[in-house]
Amino acid sequence: MGVWLGALLIFDNLILKMEKSKNRLEVCFSPAIYSEHANDENLVVIVDILRATSSICAAIHNGVKSIIPVATVEEAKALKQQGYLVASERDGNVLDFADFGNSPFNFTPEIVKGKEIVYSTTNGTRCIHLANHSKAVLIGSFLNITSLAEWLIQQNAPVLIFCASWKDRFSLEDTVFAGALAERLLNSGKFESICDAVTASVDLWNLAKSDLSGYIQKAAQKGRLASKGLDDCIEYCLTADQTHVIPVFRNDRLVDVSGAV
Amino acid sequence: MGVWLGALLIFDNLILKMEKSKNRLEVCFSPAIYSEHANDENLVVIVDILRATSSICAAIHNGVKSIIPVATVEEAKALKQQGYLVASERDGNVLDFADFGNSPFNFTPEIVKGKEIVYSTTNGTRCIHLANHSKAVLIGSFLNITSLAEWLIQQNAPVLIFCASWKDRFSLEDTVFAGALAERLLNSGKFESICDAVTASVDLWNLAKSDLSGYIQKAAQKGRLASKGLDDCIEYCLTADQTHVIPVFRNDRLVDVSGAV
Repeated sequence: MGVWLGALLIFDNLILKMEKSKNRLEVCFSPAIYSEHANDENLVVIVDILRATSSICAAIHNGVKSIIPVATVEEAKALKQQGYLVASERDGNVLDFADFGNSPFNFTPEIVKGKEIVYSTTNGTRCIHLANHSKAVLIGSFLNITSLAEWLIQQNAPVLIFCASWKDRFSLEDTVFAGALAERLLNSGKFESICDAVTASVDLWNLAKSDLSGYIQKAAQKGRLASKGLDDCIEYCLTADQTHVIPVFRNDRLVDVSGAV
Repeated sequence: MGVWLGALLIFDNLILKMEKSKNRLEVCFSPAIYSEHANDENLVVIVDILRATSSICAAIHNGVKSIIPVATVEEAKALKQQGYLVASERDGNVLDFADFGNSPFNFTPEIVKGKEIVYSTTNGTRCIHLANHSKAVLIGSFLNITSLAEWLIQQNAPVLIFCASWKDRFSLEDTVFAGALAERLLNSGKFESICDAVTASVDLWNLAKSDLSGYIQKAAQKGRLASKGLDDCIEYCLTADQTHVIPVFRNDRLVDVSGAV
């Protein structure tokens, strides 16, 4: 009897150790809350699916060598004068000095292959710089969700999914994506979470996934894009697994590490 | 034909005006995001259902004359020396100088009736002071949800439901309450929303409401309270309509305005 009890205790202890070896998973809903989630060990996935992070995935998939994210129009303009291709938009208008706007459809292989592109995105750049102390800063969207999830599962590190949001406010479409990614990570058995934002994201994703386009109709950003005629790319941005790229921020640039060992 | 067209246009115009007369409804998930939602015209409902705002409703229901919310233990201690009854807890421990902790069960009529009570709550007090520029700052919980909803519907003003959260992070239980209240306000036909946090709150409430206690088991705060043996009041905090009180912050105190004309 004592032997069985001993075996049981050892087994329990092993289970406990396995539980402890899981990595922490969190979701952050706004740059304003980021400091509460910050940790140098985190792999941070920046999410701004309508449209910045979808566009970045599309551009890198289409052969862009690297993307330099900048926060201000002035920086974008200065880099344009240095000869870079520049994507820059404010309130839905392509700026006069820029080569294209922020739609993922702009970055066709004919135009971008082999180039370095400056991408002006206020929210995205701010998030990248906020999280730059972390182990790695990555770019996530439905376009690369499976590759990204597999890559994250292999890394054995805590993951923070960081919704860029809109003017610091909670964003429905980024949250639904966060839920989709979080579900895959949790289902791998390699992660654990005591973060309410993970719970809410996964629950909203499960509400949305049977009719994702229909659900995203409710998002305020859908209305903002539609009012400017910029919603033509939404279906594309909601379509999973169009690319294997894993954009990572290194040396002030976003580069693909999907091919790296 | 022209007459009918004219009548139709007038009718359409009336509908448009009715739509425009609806009041804005928003939800804010964290004090860190509050500045994006701030508006002097707002009626702001502070929500911290486990346990501060439930306790405040219970205390006022049980005859407390007014509650003075303070952010720091030092303020609470100074007011204790002036003769006030003080509720003060840190990390689940009632502080040695305090009369009671922060459980709603502490504020029994025998002890609190007719008294002014100092209530030390870091998050709640911070939210009240952040929102104090607004038209009114109110206290919401499941305990007073129906009375509060009816009162808000009568006021003809925009409403912001402000989740106190925990250390600025998203809080599941406050969000579910926000959804319950938002649903009532939207169903009145007097409010409209283009706020994603409202959409998410209502959707999460609809997921949770058939088994609210079961759903709240997922909340991190449930775990934090349980680990300190402070979860005995959760069922009580999730039970709707135990009181008609409408606590409002006026002259540095929370007082009941449910009886006011």
